[in-house]
Amino acid sequence: MTSADASDYRIEHDTMGEVRVPAAALYRAQTQRAVENFPLSGTPLERSHIEALARVKKAAARANAELGVLDEDVAAAIVAAADEVASGAHDAHFPIDIFQTGSGTSSNMNTNEVLATLATRSLGREVHPNDHVNASQSSNDVFPTSVHLAATAGVVHDLIPALTHLAEALEAKAAEFATVVKSGRTHLMDATPVTLGQEFGGYAAAMRYGIERLESALPRAAEVPLGGTAVGTGINTPAGFPQRVIALLVEDTGLPLTEARDHFEAQSSRDGLVELSGALRTIAVSITKICNDLRWMGSGPNTGLGEIFIPDLQPGSSIMPGKVNPVVPEAVLMIAARVIGNDATVAWAGASGSFELNVQIPVIALGVLESIRLLSNASVVLADKTVTGITANVERARALAESSPSIVTPLNRVIGYEAAAKVAKHSVKQGITVREAVIDLGFVERGEVTEAQLDTALDVLSMTRPPQA
Amino acid sequence: MTSADASDYRIEHDTMGEVRVPAAALYRAQTQRAVENFPLSGTPLERSHIEALARVKKAAARANAELGVLDEDVAAAIVAAADEVASGAHDAHFPIDIFQTGSGTSSNMNTNEVLATLATRSLGREVHPNDHVNASQSSNDVFPTSVHLAATAGVVHDLIPALTHLAEALEAKAAEFATVVKSGRTHLMDATPVTLGQEFGGYAAAMRYGIERLESALPRAAEVPLGGTAVGTGINTPAGFPQRVIALLVEDTGLPLTEARDHFEAQSSRDGLVELSGALRTIAVSITKICNDLRWMGSGPNTGLGEIFIPDLQPGSSIMPGKVNPVVPEAVLMIAARVIGNDATVAWAGASGSFELNVQIPVIALGVLESIRLLSNASVVLADKTVTGITANVERARALAESSPSIVTPLNRVIGYEAAAKVAKHSVKQGITVREAVIDLGFVERGEVTEAQLDTALDVLSMTRPPQA
Amino acid sequence: MTSADASDYRIEHDTMGEVRVPAAALYRAQTQRAVENFPLSGTPLERSHIEALARVKKAAARANAELGVLDEDVAAAIVAAADEVASGAHDAHFPIDIFQTGSGTSSNMNTNEVLATLATRSLGREVHPNDHVNASQSSNDVFPTSVHLAATAGVVHDLIPALTHLAEALEAKAAEFATVVKSGRTHLMDATPVTLGQEFGGYAAAMRYGIERLESALPRAAEVPLGGTAVGTGINTPAGFPQRVIALLVEDTGLPLTEARDHFEAQSSRDGLVELSGALRTIAVSITKICNDLRWMGSGPNTGLGEIFIPDLQPGSSIMPGKVNPVVPEAVLMIAARVIGNDATVAWAGASGSFELNVQIPVIALGVLESIRLLSNASVVLADKTVTGITANVERARALAESSPSIVTPLNRVIGYEAAAKVAKHSVKQGITVREAVIDLGFVERGEVTEAQLDTALDVLSMTRPPQA
Amino acid sequence: MTSADASDYRIEHDTMGEVRVPAAALYRAQTQRAVENFPLSGTPLERSHIEALARVKKAAARANAELGVLDEDVAAAIVAAADEVASGAHDAHFPIDIFQTGSGTSSNMNTNEVLATLATRSLGREVHPNDHVNASQSSNDVFPTSVHLAATAGVVHDLIPALTHLAEALEAKAAEFATVVKSGRTHLMDATPVTLGQEFGGYAAAMRYGIERLESALPRAAEVPLGGTAVGTGINTPAGFPQRVIALLVEDTGLPLTEARDHFEAQSSRDGLVELSGALRTIAVSITKICNDLRWMGSGPNTGLGEIFIPDLQPGSSIMPGKVNPVVPEAVLMIAARVIGNDATVAWAGASGSFELNVQIPVIALGVLESIRLLSNASVVLADKTVTGITANVERARALAESSPSIVTPLNRVIGYEAAAKVAKHSVKQGITVREAVIDLGFVERGEVTEAQLDTALDVLSMTRPPQA
Repeated sequence: MTSADASDYRIEHDTMGEVRVPAAALYRAQTQRAVENFPLSGTPLERSHIEALARVKKAAARANAELGVLDEDVAAAIVAAADEVASGAHDAHFPIDIFQTGSGTSSNMNTNEVLATLATRSLGREVHPNDHVNASQSSNDVFPTSVHLAATAGVVHDLIPALTHLAEALEAKAAEFATVVKSGRTHLMDATPVTLGQEFGGYAAAMRYGIERLESALPRAAEVPLGGTAVGTGINTPAGFPQRVIALLVEDTGLPLTEARDHFEAQSSRDGLVELSGALRTIAVSITKICNDLRWMGSGPNTGLGEIFIPDLQPGSSIMPGKVNPVVPEAVLMIAARVIGNDATVAWAGASGSFELNVQIPVIALGVLESIRLLSNASVVLADKTVTGITANVERARALAESSPSIVTPLNRVIGYEAAAKVAKHSVKQGITVREAVIDLGFVERGEVTEAQLDTALDVLSMTRPPQA
Repeated sequence: MTSADASDYRIEHDTMGEVRVPAAALYRAQTQRAVENFPLSGTPLERSHIEALARVKKAAARANAELGVLDEDVAAAIVAAADEVASGAHDAHFPIDIFQTGSGTSSNMNTNEVLATLATRSLGREVHPNDHVNASQSSNDVFPTSVHLAATAGVVHDLIPALTHLAEALEAKAAEFATVVKSGRTHLMDATPVTLGQEFGGYAAAMRYGIERLESALPRAAEVPLGGTAVGTGINTPAGFPQRVIALLVEDTGLPLTEARDHFEAQSSRDGLVELSGALRTIAVSITKICNDLRWMGSGPNTGLGEIFIPDLQPGSSIMPGKVNPVVPEAVLMIAARVIGNDATVAWAGASGSFELNVQIPVIALGVLESIRLLSNASVVLADKTVTGITANVERARALAESSPSIVTPLNRVIGYEAAAKVAKHSVKQGITVREAVIDLGFVERGEVTEAQLDTALDVLSMTRPPQA
Repeated sequence: MTSADASDYRIEHDTMGEVRVPAAALYRAQTQRAVENFPLSGTPLERSHIEALARVKKAAARANAELGVLDEDVAAAIVAAADEVASGAHDAHFPIDIFQTGSGTSSNMNTNEVLATLATRSLGREVHPNDHVNASQSSNDVFPTSVHLAATAGVVHDLIPALTHLAEALEAKAAEFATVVKSGRTHLMDATPVTLGQEFGGYAAAMRYGIERLESALPRAAEVPLGGTAVGTGINTPAGFPQRVIALLVEDTGLPLTEARDHFEAQSSRDGLVELSGALRTIAVSITKICNDLRWMGSGPNTGLGEIFIPDLQPGSSIMPGKVNPVVPEAVLMIAARVIGNDATVAWAGASGSFELNVQIPVIALGVLESIRLLSNASVVLADKTVTGITANVERARALAESSPSIVTPLNRVIGYEAAAKVAKHSVKQGITVREAVIDLGFVERGEVTEAQLDTALDVLSMTRPPQA
Repeated sequence: MTSADASDYRIEHDTMGEVRVPAAALYRAQTQRAVENFPLSGTPLERSHIEALARVKKAAARANAELGVLDEDVAAAIVAAADEVASGAHDAHFPIDIFQTGSGTSSNMNTNEVLATLATRSLGREVHPNDHVNASQSSNDVFPTSVHLAATAGVVHDLIPALTHLAEALEAKAAEFATVVKSGRTHLMDATPVTLGQEFGGYAAAMRYGIERLESALPRAAEVPLGGTAVGTGINTPAGFPQRVIALLVEDTGLPLTEARDHFEAQSSRDGLVELSGALRTIAVSITKICNDLRWMGSGPNTGLGEIFIPDLQPGSSIMPGKVNPVVPEAVLMIAARVIGNDATVAWAGASGSFELNVQIPVIALGVLESIRLLSNASVVLADKTVTGITANVERARALAESSPSIVTPLNRVIGYEAAAKVAKHSVKQGITVREAVIDLGFVERGEVTEAQLDTALDVLSMTRPPQA
């Protein structure tokens, strides 16, 4: 569209005058002005965001018809057009940069104009972007509503399923590795044993908690300001509009959207998205820890920990032949870093509101929706290309577990902490096992502990099992 | 204690050898080593954190006695000592820097040592810091438990009441200002009217949402790893210990603490605190917006918006006589900035775990507990020293509302958006009212609108009222 | 390329086996593996980054030929191919996601493969991606070098000129507004007068400082690890390679690149980019303050400060007719928010290195290069679409300045701070001018000040002029 | 002072009326108001900040005397009082919370009042806080100047020497470990060899770069707004004041302070401190990487990498006997996390200015000065308690180096990358050395490489040496 030559233009007008618009464009003057005003990033709205705007317009047209604001046929034409836009059929006609007016008015008007053009064509008489498509609405309630809607949809339809998928992959490994004993590590130093299955179970739990965090934040992220119009008062809406338009939106999307409990808070703050972003970055924090553990357990093959094998996906070095690296965990770690940055942006932007409007909504949308998309993809790729293919180096894991001086710990209750410390240090210093050190230091000889007690106390797998009542 | 001269020392020992400890100190060798190892910030643990450590020790002693690990009299001595420490009576004996070993082992041992000394004194026979006070425990479950406990206590006892207090102060103003009409502002530009009460109601709602955010995060922040000991397996605990010790902790504190659902996740991640920190910073974001609005509404007296009067608290300038500034909102804004930074620290530290331990727990504690304390104090001070004393400049607020060209908005549905835009622009250009502009442009003359319609449509207070069914 | 049907594939191989590659692709097996391994964001490398990779390969081929590692004709073929890629002619053959292996090996191999294919075609005999194109190199020195190169180029060619352009636009306004007196504002409250030109001069100075910040960071950002190969030792390079290849790179690009002073630091840390990112975010901080000032000075038209007029670019509201908003400052503010987030990502990623490699280089590249691009575009758009068109509301600005009670300040030195405070308060309380308040309180009558002294002391424009020696 | 009973008060007054002040307090009414207005954090100004305020007052008194604004004896009394305050003798009389009015007016007035009291006492006649001590000054230039001064002093006197000390400790180890060969690690996977000395040399270089970063930022951090008074115009200063007062400040402190090049930028922005904070956090990033490397190299003793021994400082576990952890690197990592958070606060606060003032200066001071202090202490402690005591596990390090399959890399240039990859994989799969794998795969037999070539190519120490011209 941008490469069309100068003759391929038509003249459109708005309240500020005439504008040359590409002949084939479904949009009109205000969209064109915005294209020209914001040559900033080259990044348009997320796909899910365009869909969300269309769905809001559809619900509004239906509610307007029900409440007598629009004629039935006009509303029907808008609804049909909105369904087309929601499907992605006209994304090329949404060319405005995400860095635009802070209210998203340009993208709201882009939607109004495209729908007006489509509806006018199908209806055969003029449908006006403002008076009809935008009836009972303002950018100030429509645009933030579209962000909350897209974010809710992304969480419900993409991210929670993706995290569930990852949790299940981790749980399958937890079961598979249930008796693979290995050394625990605290402060990176040898600690008492755990099983590899316990560790993977912990990772799975972290992902399940991530889902809980999203579900906890959702009630507020899914509250929408729709119906508040310009400043929260609902000026220029018919009675009953907010309730009806949101009910229709819920019906259309199947999402748990609700009307803002306080329209003045909802108009001026995007705190529900800031909170949701906090949940997203907490998931990024969890995933960071998991990917680092996986990378370290798979480190080697010969100079690292070497407790697991991570699937080989691609040659790892352009100079070191045969090298294979944990590339998917690395990519996922970088996505976590991006989510952390997006979260900083969202908090910063979220604090920038004044009076009846926050004018950094588009960048909040960018941050939240990008993070949802990235974490969704990362979870699936991590599960399918790495977790599922991990195998344990069972012998090495056990050998390391048995070499840890901390396996002396069960002896605390037999010989006391201070004597046990002597054993551990003696074992390390002499390069002998803990069992040998106990004997070497005369504990058996002195009758402080029997060899049978030692056998029981020093069994590494039993150390991983919680005491039973 | 630090100024005592060299002769005022006694010799203590631990598993690494002898240490000189101040003669009067209740603590012993390991605390002293830590004092010497970490001359870093000069900041000790928060008061609430020392109390939390003591309460964990108390519950552990009781559970240990019940389950046969400790003699009743030893346990009773530890419980009594823990109550003293919890009360704050011995804070001077907790001298270790918050920047210490990442597990908090130093502070756990500090607690063990102080309690052992106190219990030994009261009992008349040796109570050992590790074998008795720390029985069935590890720093790796005790220390994070103490942070979750202190954070939960801070949220439940301090922050939620403080936010409630602030919300109530704002709600009182919302009622008081219910009919004070003023200009709405979007993009900082003149918009359709709202009432000052609607704005304050929005602020109150933001604070109520903040409370909801805390309550949503609390179930996970209040899950504690206690019972997992060294690596989550519960090594060296008697059967039933985790359930019992946590039940006793709940009984003692009245807080909604629960046992970690997955002890391996709980041992290695502090994600529940990262999530809670996200809620705290969302509250900081909300408060930032509110304080900025208050500052701007109170700006002037003669060159600003001048819609409200903020109470005078102190002379505002060392050079400009008679100047008074909104100093409390400014201080609160800086607290919000600090909370934002603390949150960045907490996320960073929260991602730093490896295997069975996160070794940045103390700085997570510092960030979360400081933010809770600061936000609690800020909420109360903002309510009592600013919000409660705010008065409205009713006449100026109404005059500005009536001067806004956006009050033409109700005419959209009479004369259409494009014609209404002409009216607004004509009004601004000519410096006349919207009503005059409508007439001047001939809309009345042409019969497109009647003067009676104008009277109804242009009443600023009625524009603030949502349409009724 | 991705939509080609299954028959349009050819078989390629690498050290891990066979891969199906699109028939028309210039790339080979390893690129294809990476495309399949990283379906994460859909975002490829920045254009400037692909160019930088090509330029590194070109310099390496030339140095390799000079030092006897490559035959002259092979090197020449690679050089010619690299020039094509640098020009942007083959960007479609760089399909790998920016979220990939943390070393950027995939993109390095993508470059190697595309150049090998092009060079093989032009030379008529096999040029190998590793043995020839990558000779004397490793992803671990090439890829970070490409990021430093692209960042340096972006700063030198785009951002510094853009900031200079913005500074000049602001300086022009500073000159134009040199005698437009207005009220100063501190704490948002009325202060002593300044000129609008002084304010714009301050904004221009902030942009000039931004340029200095970039220039200060550049010496370290422009240090490149090239020559260190796999781990900094320069393994598999001929003697003199680092010096020569960097000299050729400087010759080709005209940029102030230098060899890393310590190749082990350079291999393992990306601190030079973290530092540069800190400069970028400081510029974002400066711009945020400027844009907020502009928005507030332009607020109104009737209920705000109304001291300047910001050019109208597009209708501002879909519901409030005639409303126009400061849309470009808003967009620029959001870019600042994005830069802040990118900076958080860069610091986080920058701290994630281990031993001889940081494995979050691609996301560092994404953050730094995106911020450079966004700030460059934002500076130009802000200058051209907003600053240049700003006009002053001279009368209103002066009227407000004269209404500020702080203009009493010069009287401190005549009647003392405490008496001056009484005057200021009297003036506000009675709604009279400061001059009237002085007289009303009897200072003239009592001979403490003369009317002539008042005339001199209370002239608002002279208050804006620094005292002359 | 706070515990004095109610009878120990005297009555002071300011322009707002009477205030009860503790009888023994050197401060007066405005300090007392601020104590009561800001019961927020309990944290006063940093010691270095109080000193800086006193030094500014001293220089101002001297300049005022020289320029005829103050009588010589009054100025001398203020100078003497300022020297006392600068020395720390009266810190207890600076009780105001750091979270206060955003301009720091309260702390400026606290300084004015304490100096006025001291000077009045010594002079025997009234010295006024505003008319004398604050003459030719405003909080708006004095307070930010004090922050820049304290930050510059901290960087010059504390942090650069501390980083130098750490760099020297690392350099000493680099020399000591110059021939300790070990495996390189990229992506945590076995790479070609390096020496431990090369790694420590890299760490030292990172610290040296940190010093450069500070020196690069200092010219702007050391620019001070003094002389601009209320809004940058220098109102109420005598001609020549800024130049003279800053010259005297330089003379007194020996610091490279300079006058703001643009007083309007200097008055309204704290960008020089935001930039400096960026340098501080870059140092935190560098230190994070170093401490993580140290922790991993010292991991074990038996299940980790075990390449170095980190000095034992204290028992590491309350439950696992004999365990010793890298506690100082952990503490330093947490300090880095705190610095990261402080930096986020500083950027946030730095962007919060409006018109002639940023009203978050105190929290910027808190962030910057705390970070400088923490990094200074951390550098010294890390050097003295950890780095200096590190020893190498020479045999294990070499054995690991020799086991890395990546030592095949030098054979690329003999047998090609693809054949070398086969060797590496064969070696890992069969559990044999690279040398054995070469022979086993027939390369020697086929004459593609000789055993002598193998000896040369596979010497791990020589692989660490850059090629010589």
